[in-house]
Amino acid sequence: MSAAPSVISLRTCRRLHSRKERARSGQFLAEGIRPVIAALESRIPVEAVLYAPDLLHGDHGLAALDTARRRNIPTVRLTEREFESLATREHPQGIACVGRQTWSSLDRLGRASSPIVALYAPQDPGNLGTILRTCDAAGSAGLVLVGDAVDPWHPWALRAAMGATFSLPIVRCDVPAFSAWVSANRLPLIGASDHAAADYAAHPFPPSFVLLMGSERQGLPPALERATDVLVRIPMAGSVDSLNLAVATALVLYEARNQQVRPRRSGGQAL
Amino acid sequence: MSAAPSVISLRTCRRLHSRKERARSGQFLAEGIRPVIAALESRIPVEAVLYAPDLLHGDHGLAALDTARRRNIPTVRLTEREFESLATREHPQGIACVGRQTWSSLDRLGRASSPIVALYAPQDPGNLGTILRTCDAAGSAGLVLVGDAVDPWHPWALRAAMGATFSLPIVRCDVPAFSAWVSANRLPLIGASDHAAADYAAHPFPPSFVLLMGSERQGLPPALERATDVLVRIPMAGSVDSLNLAVATALVLYEARNQQVRPRRSGGQAL
Repeated sequence: MSAAPSVISLRTCRRLHSRKERARSGQFLAEGIRPVIAALESRIPVEAVLYAPDLLHGDHGLAALDTARRRNIPTVRLTEREFESLATREHPQGIACVGRQTWSSLDRLGRASSPIVALYAPQDPGNLGTILRTCDAAGSAGLVLVGDAVDPWHPWALRAAMGATFSLPIVRCDVPAFSAWVSANRLPLIGASDHAAADYAAHPFPPSFVLLMGSERQGLPPALERATDVLVRIPMAGSVDSLNLAVATALVLYEARNQQVRPRRSGGQAL
Repeated sequence: MSAAPSVISLRTCRRLHSRKERARSGQFLAEGIRPVIAALESRIPVEAVLYAPDLLHGDHGLAALDTARRRNIPTVRLTEREFESLATREHPQGIACVGRQTWSSLDRLGRASSPIVALYAPQDPGNLGTILRTCDAAGSAGLVLVGDAVDPWHPWALRAAMGATFSLPIVRCDVPAFSAWVSANRLPLIGASDHAAADYAAHPFPPSFVLLMGSERQGLPPALERATDVLVRIPMAGSVDSLNLAVATALVLYEARNQQVRPRRSGGQAL
C-alpha cells in the first residue's frame, strides 16, 4: 500500500518545514499523535500519514493509523532514522500527517455570534499556536491574521495549537481589508494596549466582538489603535513591562466569556 | 580590561547551556538586552557582561554595558562569530551576562500577603519563563517548583521570563517539604484540574493563597490533588482537551487579582 506511486516522498514532506514550500504546495506537515488524530477528526483533507513502527507506541497512535487505512488515506512506513529526520521535536512520537491547508474568509466570519480574535503581525509560531488552542477552548468563532503574520501551518504553530488549527476558521488579510470588514459588519472592535486607560476586567464585553491584539514587539500600529471602539489594558504590578501575547489574549478572551456566565451585580439578566 | 585573568572564558559561558554545569557552578547565562538590564537592576549578582560591538545596537544595550563598567563588573568583548556561538536565539542582540543563581526558601515565602504559584514538575522551559513573567505582572509573591521541574535558569526560561526571574522569589522543594510548608502555614491550597467541578471564575479567591498547577502532560498527581482545599476548572468550549500551562496559570491568577479589585455583588467587603 505504501509503495503506491501517488504516495508522498520523505523529501517532499521534509520540504514542508519551509514556509515557501508550504505556500507553493498548499500543504502542511503535522507531527505527533494528538495533532494527527485532530486532523483525522476534522474536515481538513489529510493526504498521507507517515509513521515509524519503532517509535509509535500506545493505543491512540495505532488507532489513528488504523483510521487512516480504513479511509484509504495513503500511509508511509519510515525507519526510526527517517522519521527523526522529519521531526521537529526531541522525542518524536513516530506519527505525522500531510494535509491540505484550509483557510476561511472574512465574509464567512462576519456572521459569528461569539468573539473573533484578530492578531496584527504576530511573529512567534508558538504564540500563534497557543492562541489558536485558547480560541478553541474559549469558544471563539475564529482567528484573523492581519498583515505580515507568522504562518499558522508552521510545524511549531501546529504543535502548540494541539489540533485547534483544524477546527477553528482562520483568515488572513491585509489592514485595509480588515478595516473594511469591521466597518461593513459594524463589529465592535476592542483592542488591547499597555497605555489604555480601561482595566480589561472592568470593561463590559458584548457577547460578540472582535478582539484586536498587536504584535509581540510593537503592539498595535497607531492607525489600527485609532480604528478600535475601545482600548483595554491588563494591569501589571511588577517589574516586567508586558505580558506574553498568548497570555494577554487568553486573559481578555476568558474575561469576556466569564462575564457572559457571571451573574450581574444589578441582579438583571446576563446579556 | 577584558583581558584580566579573572574574566570568564567564552568556553565557560557556553557550558552554562547545560543544566549539569549550571547546577555545579551555581551560575546562569542570560542573553538579550532586556534580560541583561533586568539582571543589572536586580539584586542578583552579575559576574560578567559579554558583548559583541558589531551586534549591539541601540541606546539601551550600550547603556547596560556602561552600567556594568561603572560598577566594575568585568566586561568581555567578543567577535560577532564568538557571540553567535553563545547565543540561543536566531538574531542575537549582542549582549549577555553571567550571574549567580539566587534561590529563595519556603520559610521566607510563608509570610506572603499575595498569591504564591506552585508548579508540580513543569517540563517546558518556555512555559516556566512565561509563568514567571505572568507572576511578576499579576503581583504574585513568588514561585515554588515542586518535584522534578525544569530549571528556571535554562536560557529559554530566562528569555521567556523577560527579567522576572531576577525579581521574583523562586523556591524548589520536594513534595513532602511542600505539603509540610502548606500545613504549617495554614495556607489555602487551590489546585487547577480539568475534572474539577467548580468554574474558576465563580470561585471566591482569598487575597493570599497557593495556586497549585500540575505538569503539562500529566496534571496533578492524585496525592497532591487530595491535599488541596479546593479544585477549580477552566471551562473549555471547543475540541482541544486542555489549555497551555502558562495560559491556565495566568487565567486563575488574574481572576484572583480581578476579584480583589472588582466590586462585590453583595456590596459587602472583599474577603
